Amino acid sequence: MKIRAAIVGANGYTGFELIKLLYNHPHFTLTAAASRSFAGTRLRDVYPALSFVCGNDVFVPPDADEIAKKADVVFTALPHAASAAIGGTFHDKGIKVIDLSADFRYTDINLYETTYGVTHPRPELNRRAVYGLCEIFRAHIAKADIVGNPGCYTTCSILPLYPLLQAGLLSPHGIIVDAASGITGAGRKESVDYNFCETDENYKAYGVTTHRHTTEIEEKLHATVTFTPHLLPVKRGILATIYADLAPQATAAAIDKAYGMYADEKFAVPLGEGVLPELKWVAGSNVCAFGYKIDHKSNRIIIVSAIDNLIKGASGQAVQNANILFGLPETEGLPAIGNHL
Amino acid sequence: MKIRAAIVGANGYTGFELIKLLYNHPHFTLTAAASRSFAGTRLRDVYPALSFVCGNDVFVPPDADEIAKKADVVFTALPHAASAAIGGTFHDKGIKVIDLSADFRYTDINLYETTYGVTHPRPELNRRAVYGLCEIFRAHIAKADIVGNPGCYTTCSILPLYPLLQAGLLSPHGIIVDAASGITGAGRKESVDYNFCETDENYKAYGVTTHRHTTEIEEKLHATVTFTPHLLPVKRGILATIYADLAPQATAAAIDKAYGMYADEKFAVPLGEGVLPELKWVAGSNVCAFGYKIDHKSNRIIIVSAIDNLIKGASGQAVQNANILFGLPETEGLPAIGNHL
Amino acid sequence: MKIRAAIVGANGYTGFELIKLLYNHPHFTLTAAASRSFAGTRLRDVYPALSFVCGNDVFVPPDADEIAKKADVVFTALPHAASAAIGGTFHDKGIKVIDLSADFRYTDINLYETTYGVTHPRPELNRRAVYGLCEIFRAHIAKADIVGNPGCYTTCSILPLYPLLQAGLLSPHGIIVDAASGITGAGRKESVDYNFCETDENYKAYGVTTHRHTTEIEEKLHATVTFTPHLLPVKRGILATIYADLAPQATAAAIDKAYGMYADEKFAVPLGEGVLPELKWVAGSNVCAFGYKIDHKSNRIIIVSAIDNLIKGASGQAVQNANILFGLPETEGLPAIGNHL
Amino acid sequence: MKIRAAIVGANGYTGFELIKLLYNHPHFTLTAAASRSFAGTRLRDVYPALSFVCGNDVFVPPDADEIAKKADVVFTALPHAASAAIGGTFHDKGIKVIDLSADFRYTDINLYETTYGVTHPRPELNRRAVYGLCEIFRAHIAKADIVGNPGCYTTCSILPLYPLLQAGLLSPHGIIVDAASGITGAGRKESVDYNFCETDENYKAYGVTTHRHTTEIEEKLHATVTFTPHLLPVKRGILATIYADLAPQATAAAIDKAYGMYADEKFAVPLGEGVLPELKWVAGSNVCAFGYKIDHKSNRIIIVSAIDNLIKGASGQAVQNANILFGLPETEGLPAIGNHL
Repeated sequence: MKIRAAIVGANGYTGFELIKLLYNHPHFTLTAAASRSFAGTRLRDVYPALSFVCGNDVFVPPDADEIAKKADVVFTALPHAASAAIGGTFHDKGIKVIDLSADFRYTDINLYETTYGVTHPRPELNRRAVYGLCEIFRAHIAKADIVGNPGCYTTCSILPLYPLLQAGLLSPHGIIVDAASGITGAGRKESVDYNFCETDENYKAYGVTTHRHTTEIEEKLHATVTFTPHLLPVKRGILATIYADLAPQATAAAIDKAYGMYADEKFAVPLGEGVLPELKWVAGSNVCAFGYKIDHKSNRIIIVSAIDNLIKGASGQAVQNANILFGLPETEGLPAIGNHL
Repeated sequence: MKIRAAIVGANGYTGFELIKLLYNHPHFTLTAAASRSFAGTRLRDVYPALSFVCGNDVFVPPDADEIAKKADVVFTALPHAASAAIGGTFHDKGIKVIDLSADFRYTDINLYETTYGVTHPRPELNRRAVYGLCEIFRAHIAKADIVGNPGCYTTCSILPLYPLLQAGLLSPHGIIVDAASGITGAGRKESVDYNFCETDENYKAYGVTTHRHTTEIEEKLHATVTFTPHLLPVKRGILATIYADLAPQATAAAIDKAYGMYADEKFAVPLGEGVLPELKWVAGSNVCAFGYKIDHKSNRIIIVSAIDNLIKGASGQAVQNANILFGLPETEGLPAIGNHL
Repeated sequence: MKIRAAIVGANGYTGFELIKLLYNHPHFTLTAAASRSFAGTRLRDVYPALSFVCGNDVFVPPDADEIAKKADVVFTALPHAASAAIGGTFHDKGIKVIDLSADFRYTDINLYETTYGVTHPRPELNRRAVYGLCEIFRAHIAKADIVGNPGCYTTCSILPLYPLLQAGLLSPHGIIVDAASGITGAGRKESVDYNFCETDENYKAYGVTTHRHTTEIEEKLHATVTFTPHLLPVKRGILATIYADLAPQATAAAIDKAYGMYADEKFAVPLGEGVLPELKWVAGSNVCAFGYKIDHKSNRIIIVSAIDNLIKGASGQAVQNANILFGLPETEGLPAIGNHL
Repeated sequence: MKIRAAIVGANGYTGFELIKLLYNHPHFTLTAAASRSFAGTRLRDVYPALSFVCGNDVFVPPDADEIAKKADVVFTALPHAASAAIGGTFHDKGIKVIDLSADFRYTDINLYETTYGVTHPRPELNRRAVYGLCEIFRAHIAKADIVGNPGCYTTCSILPLYPLLQAGLLSPHGIIVDAASGITGAGRKESVDYNFCETDENYKAYGVTTHRHTTEIEEKLHATVTFTPHLLPVKRGILATIYADLAPQATAAAIDKAYGMYADEKFAVPLGEGVLPELKWVAGSNVCAFGYKIDHKSNRIIIVSAIDNLIKGASGQAVQNANILFGLPETEGLPAIGNHL
């Protein structure tokens, strides 16, 4: 019998991707896709690409009591604070929660509240929540009942940096993460700003020095970070080019040794010195791949790290967390080949 | 001394393109760019690409009295009926009007009203107005004081078909115009539908059997037309693939002879049998280029016609009409080389 | 135990897509990916998106004897005539063959030879071959040992037209197929013509009146067809807009009844009157979806049909044929949700 | 009478853009477009977008004697070393030379030879040559007869950094230039690597720590630079995100004061603190625009600088240099409005 999964806040691009992953998953079955704005509308009328599998299924209202009756796990993806509130309600009913907002990502609740400008509705639950970066916190996730699913830029940044900082190979001061994201990262917006004519053949920086993922990266890495996101004219994917000062003992051999912690990972893949991933290698997959070069002149490492923002950066990692929560093989239902084309 | 030009309804993509053309024009000077929604805002804050030429110029309100004081010609580009109303006011004040809406395009005002679902506010002016398809109605335009600037799809369709129908080389029954437009054709819209993520890597038909340009084409050609527009994932340009039944006497030689009427034209360019234009040849220019092949098996001609929807399909043709109205060389200020890159 | 599948001519985009599908298939295992030009090179060095699943697997030479030892079915995808030659060798060794070239698609071998300008190397095998358009020829395919996998434009055209022609609802004369394809359709080419700078923001017709898929469509439909392909600035997908004259008895009800033959199909999906598919609905899936509108003025039907050229138009249909050949559920290993994003 | 200009190496994208600019220039006339590979071919057959202005003009062979007879200035754009060789020949004949290769860009000829791996064919001429970054070296250019036209990435990097380094507001050590370029930057290549299917929806770093523009930037700025270029899925434009350590006295006021040196410039435009240009603001124009933010946490400045790589980054700056060489108004014939659409 399949595990019953529900989504609350299913109408955005993250929701669409989660629906796709759950439809294709051998062990989960989607029992409710909830959306306030689309309640009563057929899934296929919002996302016609689902037409060939979803029959006449409709979005349901985000009614926690109703949804709780038919879910073993709920994926919550509402705006900040609202997400923790309804997620807390599911938790109170004994249902496992994987939250895709920032609400359960921070250990330091003050840092969360300062970063997001809201009061956390359930601080006591935040203490129970586990940060769902699977490759690093897997053991804690397995025992958790609330998971704060990491941000997209943060996943792409933390995975390659964490082993090197742990091994003392990098200075934790003044790391630069210069990253570029596809436009799905901005969500499904009614705005001229993301109109094709405004974004195609364009490229721009945004949120320079102010983007909220900065504090999430800094908390998890115990480092200071200058983070500059850019908007790429592509649908999906993030590529981060990361600059950090090397410690004296940091050789390529030492770096590769530190990356040995990912030797058995399917979804965190160090490519080694000089092999730098491209977006198309990972877009469409749940893989975060990264490589590096050493700039001897400046004694810096330059890391290039790539993920699909909607999969490993959101819905795929959420499913990976669900696999862990329910003791399934961690790769189940998750794509490992990039789109390329 | 330069001729003073104003734009009413300057905030859309057509308005932006018109501003660019007028800034670069040797004989016109833009004295007012009016927009209700942007009045008081700097041009550069809406269209930063103008920053390097427009200083701190602001959009003004669409106040006909104020604008009339500083304009010899007004380009009106408001929604249907509103455009004719304010255009009529300028006309009453003795100012020449080039209207980019559909309001002054139709000879048969009933066909206009049926097609657009509005009552024409100034039917007596409609009788004075001239259809601004320069290469065909040049002589009338030169004597006009109100010009109905043609639609984009219509310009691209009429220019290659008109000479052949006039020469009796095509059946006027059941012509098919299968066309594809860049997304600027949809205008500057606050809508998810034109979000990059919804349009990039996509292609679709729309308005099938119902698009309003159908009746405009039919009226000017005295023909019946099945018109199927599509939305291309490009910013600008229209390419129309046109199918028509050949009359018995229609040889390539006869066709080329009929196209001889364009021998001296710079902006209506027959390329001959077997040379079919691509979008990049004309995008960025005021040229409509077209070529054809004969399908002997079905006794059909297949014409491929291409324009830039914002230039020859809107603002460029409007400037070409202004050049004619003021007795200037018709090519003045109009680009004749395609972007390619 | 899994069924052993080999690919000969694996280096192109069709080959890449086939490798992806076979890696993800529950019942087939890829035992050899052969390519003359890449023999000895790792798959991941040509297609890095495979890095996360294919280890250090290399392309092998197209040596029929070696490959025959480890294959129960071979997918052949070489240039015309070469494909039938090596496919014939595998057939002689008792191995099932699914050929993705045009070599086994035609019943009339003269039509094939005229269309492709080659002599068929194995005419006697051509008589045994079955045309692999699954939804129409399923019963024959199940008993076949050589399948000619249909072309991409042809699949997209035949599936919506066949039921209506069979039911006598359309005139078989002078059908127009005006289609647009993504650039993967041109294959993996060393050519300036398909450089990003030449194709992005562009759109063009090509092969007008001369494209080779015309005769394939005509043979299967017993109709005459004017076929005009265009090149879209997208990676994948074909959208065909089809015009045909309606028979007197052709109502929407009659059309929908004729489409009833697809009522149980997963991969040939009639959407009904007025619902016209977009590329993003089917790109990434094995679905061909189509809808229509009736143009009463001209007594024509306008059908819009969409597929993914690499999947239902090539590799996906090849796997669907393999599923049929080996008695597997026909949808096994084939994606049914479109990419959308 | 117009000044006669010739191009040697006219067949690439830089050549195309130069032809466009010269055709539209009020004071220059293009008398020869030379290309070894296209000699005898009509310009319009290689670049059909020129069809509407260039009649049946053909590419001529790169014969220096013939070209010298009809040129007052020659734009040379051949591969490294070859460009200086033929440029030298023109110089010997008393013709002004603007070289678009790297051959006359370096003061330190050893640095040039090390960077490009060639022996400079005319070292004595290199000493006469002036680096054609107009806004900084204008006075020297006016008296020069050989100009080394700057690289694209270098122009975009040097213009915003030079005033701040001159004013002592930045540390010259370890500046990071993280830049992204459109694909025209790679030139007109017969290569799968730049095929639409390989580049669309992709993004990648390349030449990390090894790109040749690094030494050009370093020489002109007397600074050390880590330079990381990326390839954007757009046709044209470069956006550079630059990180540098601030000197203690570096306030926004001091920075703006240093940028005062560009107060009268049309093509080097400081936008001030917090206004960061986007690609579409400058693509299609000869403008380099830049803005900045101060990251107080790390005491760094983050500069975002944007140009059109083919115009201000190549052909436009070459024409600007020609304007200077011949005492014309410097903005003549050069576009100052960005494409946006």
